[in-house]
Amino acid sequence: MDVVDFVPEHNQFVYTFGGCRPAATIKPGTALRLWTEDAFNNAITSVADVPSTVLDSRYLNPQTGPFYVEGAEPGDTLAIHIVDLTPARGWGASAMIPFFGGLTATDRTSLLHDHLPEGVWIYEIDSAAQTVGFQTRKGDFEVALPIEPMLGTVGLAPAGSEVFSSLTPERFGGNMDTPEMRVGTTAYFGVNVEGAMFSIGDGHYRQGEGEACGTAVEGAMNSTIIVDLIKGGAPDWPRLEDDAHWMVVGSSRPMEDSWRISQVQMIQWLGELYGLDRMDAYQLLTQISLVPVANVVDTNYSVMTKIAKSLLPERSAFNGIHADLRDRARSLV
Amino acid sequence: MDVVDFVPEHNQFVYTFGGCRPAATIKPGTALRLWTEDAFNNAITSVADVPSTVLDSRYLNPQTGPFYVEGAEPGDTLAIHIVDLTPARGWGASAMIPFFGGLTATDRTSLLHDHLPEGVWIYEIDSAAQTVGFQTRKGDFEVALPIEPMLGTVGLAPAGSEVFSSLTPERFGGNMDTPEMRVGTTAYFGVNVEGAMFSIGDGHYRQGEGEACGTAVEGAMNSTIIVDLIKGGAPDWPRLEDDAHWMVVGSSRPMEDSWRISQVQMIQWLGELYGLDRMDAYQLLTQISLVPVANVVDTNYSVMTKIAKSLLPERSAFNGIHADLRDRARSLV
Amino acid sequence: MDVVDFVPEHNQFVYTFGGCRPAATIKPGTALRLWTEDAFNNAITSVADVPSTVLDSRYLNPQTGPFYVEGAEPGDTLAIHIVDLTPARGWGASAMIPFFGGLTATDRTSLLHDHLPEGVWIYEIDSAAQTVGFQTRKGDFEVALPIEPMLGTVGLAPAGSEVFSSLTPERFGGNMDTPEMRVGTTAYFGVNVEGAMFSIGDGHYRQGEGEACGTAVEGAMNSTIIVDLIKGGAPDWPRLEDDAHWMVVGSSRPMEDSWRISQVQMIQWLGELYGLDRMDAYQLLTQISLVPVANVVDTNYSVMTKIAKSLLPERSAFNGIHADLRDRARSLV
Amino acid sequence: MDVVDFVPEHNQFVYTFGGCRPAATIKPGTALRLWTEDAFNNAITSVADVPSTVLDSRYLNPQTGPFYVEGAEPGDTLAIHIVDLTPARGWGASAMIPFFGGLTATDRTSLLHDHLPEGVWIYEIDSAAQTVGFQTRKGDFEVALPIEPMLGTVGLAPAGSEVFSSLTPERFGGNMDTPEMRVGTTAYFGVNVEGAMFSIGDGHYRQGEGEACGTAVEGAMNSTIIVDLIKGGAPDWPRLEDDAHWMVVGSSRPMEDSWRISQVQMIQWLGELYGLDRMDAYQLLTQISLVPVANVVDTNYSVMTKIAKSLLPERSAFNGIHADLRDRARSLV
Repeated sequence: MDVVDFVPEHNQFVYTFGGCRPAATIKPGTALRLWTEDAFNNAITSVADVPSTVLDSRYLNPQTGPFYVEGAEPGDTLAIHIVDLTPARGWGASAMIPFFGGLTATDRTSLLHDHLPEGVWIYEIDSAAQTVGFQTRKGDFEVALPIEPMLGTVGLAPAGSEVFSSLTPERFGGNMDTPEMRVGTTAYFGVNVEGAMFSIGDGHYRQGEGEACGTAVEGAMNSTIIVDLIKGGAPDWPRLEDDAHWMVVGSSRPMEDSWRISQVQMIQWLGELYGLDRMDAYQLLTQISLVPVANVVDTNYSVMTKIAKSLLPERSAFNGIHADLRDRARSLV
Repeated sequence: MDVVDFVPEHNQFVYTFGGCRPAATIKPGTALRLWTEDAFNNAITSVADVPSTVLDSRYLNPQTGPFYVEGAEPGDTLAIHIVDLTPARGWGASAMIPFFGGLTATDRTSLLHDHLPEGVWIYEIDSAAQTVGFQTRKGDFEVALPIEPMLGTVGLAPAGSEVFSSLTPERFGGNMDTPEMRVGTTAYFGVNVEGAMFSIGDGHYRQGEGEACGTAVEGAMNSTIIVDLIKGGAPDWPRLEDDAHWMVVGSSRPMEDSWRISQVQMIQWLGELYGLDRMDAYQLLTQISLVPVANVVDTNYSVMTKIAKSLLPERSAFNGIHADLRDRARSLV
Repeated sequence: MDVVDFVPEHNQFVYTFGGCRPAATIKPGTALRLWTEDAFNNAITSVADVPSTVLDSRYLNPQTGPFYVEGAEPGDTLAIHIVDLTPARGWGASAMIPFFGGLTATDRTSLLHDHLPEGVWIYEIDSAAQTVGFQTRKGDFEVALPIEPMLGTVGLAPAGSEVFSSLTPERFGGNMDTPEMRVGTTAYFGVNVEGAMFSIGDGHYRQGEGEACGTAVEGAMNSTIIVDLIKGGAPDWPRLEDDAHWMVVGSSRPMEDSWRISQVQMIQWLGELYGLDRMDAYQLLTQISLVPVANVVDTNYSVMTKIAKSLLPERSAFNGIHADLRDRARSLV
Repeated sequence: MDVVDFVPEHNQFVYTFGGCRPAATIKPGTALRLWTEDAFNNAITSVADVPSTVLDSRYLNPQTGPFYVEGAEPGDTLAIHIVDLTPARGWGASAMIPFFGGLTATDRTSLLHDHLPEGVWIYEIDSAAQTVGFQTRKGDFEVALPIEPMLGTVGLAPAGSEVFSSLTPERFGGNMDTPEMRVGTTAYFGVNVEGAMFSIGDGHYRQGEGEACGTAVEGAMNSTIIVDLIKGGAPDWPRLEDDAHWMVVGSSRPMEDSWRISQVQMIQWLGELYGLDRMDAYQLLTQISLVPVANVVDTNYSVMTKIAKSLLPERSAFNGIHADLRDRARSLV
């Protein structure tokens, strides 16, 4: 297996999906060891930082990539399997940013309120315990929370020559902010342009579902992934698979539309896997679907539909590539 | 402990929250063994039934109750602990009903499409295996799914002399359709009228999150609950607690508003439990919140915010009544 | 023509649609001269008033009625023609109420902001000029605005034994807050219960579309209306007609659903009036529809679809009753 | 006054905002006579055309431009005054396109319905009467509707290196589809990139508010516009002005967010024009705002807030450039 290591220089980060030159060209089946900067672009390092002062809106959510995958053509399926995610710093940060987040007026839910108090929370990692430490800014409450590393952002170049900010989740993936983008997950994306042009970023040491305030425990990350290509079979929206679940993410507004997308896509997937009629799949979905919200803070809201494989007869998707990637991953860790 | 058994006559069912005379008066601390009819009012018994023909929209989601709780006054908190839920029939039913459900045009998401094909699915119970059997209407796919009994509907009389259909989830609870309303859960509701006037119904033998097609595996249910009263402390929206989680349900439209309600309410609850400042609680919530969707099909959409108790220092809510109810429940089963 | 005068005592006001005994019984064709209290229940009379202190949420938007219309049965159509609206006081009032309105966090769009500054604006009427005077609370800007009296609220008892606050707009009409509910308009409502049980209230001396802050120039009103009954023909949602326009109001959330309802209903109406196929009516509507927003502040948002009669061949709706009511109205003013 | 004529070759059309090389460079104050192709890219010419067959999704809504305006820098304001709009063909076309439009399931409001019947309507122009002729596809109903030419799309390059399909309305304007983009209107846009890079397209011979089916009476257009530059003063969202109205357009989802944006922006504008405190401006807006919906079919929904100048003391915006442009326009027609 080809293994490529890539630690970008600061001027190599990109801030969009689409519109960028490739950082490198890789063959399908390549393993990548990638370093990603945190979503703040390392501008926040202390509780004394004032987000509105130190953050530069042009340089948020830096992406490592994009990578050009040889042979990838529109209509193909890119499979990205997450082998390992290891925090690359000893601390993570979260911030309240004016008019950003789910429980505040925003530039979209535009209201007449002044912004909420801004501020920073620093989470020190306890490597032995594998926890990050939350402590209040007012009062002295402290609690250690398990590290559960994930990638907030995995995305491809969009179709139609569009270029979206790396803050956007869409059909092409992007900033979906789902905790399911974790070690052991294989994500499938429809390829829109030659080379697929995928990138990753936005490492989270942990995150609740919804990412309410808009920022998780953000941190630089060392990621090991295997990238593979399936000719054809492009899903309309990102599909995820781990050993235990089938998953689809929809991203739109209002949130019921995100949900509708993920549900209809899962009905389609159930149809493919089990040969079910659409109404039968709708009925079955109704009784077995899990629906964990991913984000309600980004330019689109992301909602996941998730089904436990254990409830259904065994099937393989995309020619069983997930199991194969799991096997291949063993040689890397 | 007082134990009251109540199997309503068919003409004793009610179809609204508010506007009904009490079925009985009970003392706080009473255990109730209640029989509930299914949400179809037993009009659907076979795959040959045509929902639009057999269902009577005036008599959907029949409720058992309401019960007048002695001493309950506006501003108090009603605690309902679910001790046992046992299917009261050997089969459940689900149906596709014209213009009802999450993935169809409805009377609200009013479009120009003809309705989707209607139909019925019957789920036979296998008591030994504790499963219900799904089988397709087209083709011959079958799968046995675990029984996971829950109550779709637990609600109180609304404030302000309003009366809502039993199909509605709102501040007063009602038709929230969350799978978390299961054995071992204690639900807390703010009392709006003297006597609280709660009722239950809509037993589900199992349900996915979202209840996509609008109907779960619906079935008559034998429920054992303990009802207790806490003077004062009325939560704005329904709170749920089990041994492992704190939970709040918000119900509104669009779905992001349901989410916002449940999140803000949980921030308030975290503030009460841990003495946290609002912004600290918002930050902590962001990193630990689970957000399972409850329903996207009813007159309001219901979204839950859920936090694992294991992540936080131990605390008791409502004077520790949940643990106490768990103890008391043991004598009943 | 029977003419009934009714000035309610304060204890005769009602605060819900449904759940009330009739104030009086009238025959179809009766003219009513009704006095309505303002939406604040006269609790706000000065800029010194503090809304959160003086307003009683139980007694907002008092309704005059309900009136039992002889012979009205479910499925019939109630026609209410507005003959005259005359301010009953020399001033109106508007208020900023904490967590109420369209550009603030609310109990539904639940956020973490403190409430916006509350306050009162008093609008003195200049009878000669037929204006109300706006003056700023800060600074000394003043402007006289034309009086354009309208009724924010005209509604019937709901179906299904439901009872809704008088603050709610729904299928049954209610608190739609459309400026089109003005002199010369005939409004058509589907009857849900015997007697129809309609009431009116919420006089506005003027209001912008959307009613952004939640309160118009609210004032007591003397209304002259003629009420008539059409057997059968109940529209699903309120239809309005004046000499120049066909109109339908949809009320739901999110706002696109309100729009969808009003558009689909207008397509249906165009089909009835002109014998158009559904897709042809959809196409025609697309090119001629006006869409003035009514309210974005109430428990449902209301959006109107409005078509200029002048664009289309002449037709009569509901057997031409609007023209007839216009004739009958002449004898009353 | 410089006058530039530009009739693009077919291969000169662009299909995005951003990401394109300038068609030409112009000085501020230049008049442009531009030819635009219809939104279907002339693929629909007959009722026999099948939209899903003849339309190419890569080449919808072709734009004429973009034009690089000398001296335009981020933070400046681009003023585009519409002098004349004249249909460039003798007929226009509208179409029902599968899963596109406001009253159908779409890729966002993703449901399980089959698509609505697709089809084409051709509108012949009667030049003498200045009408377009609607005729039903089923039955023989015909009606002549007044020509009311407008530009569905006027937009600038976005900020942040983003590139959006020409089907998108956003902060940068774009495909807002408001009938107010007509002769006599001056539109103001915040400049995001050097040169502003604006383009126009999507001529409509007429359109109802909302553009329900997704396509107006689409037609090639000859447009005369004057383009000018105001240093600084960039509005956050597009502002429009004609002799009689102040207008702002907000574009987002759900529709209430579009409305909120346009209302908050108008409050800001009222503050600038009249020196009003925010809460006073909110109050005044509430009583005088008009809210005509623009589109409920594009990737964002667009809602306008509109205020009649006649209600308020006279003021000039952007240094009175609208009146000046009106003067300058006289020499061109």
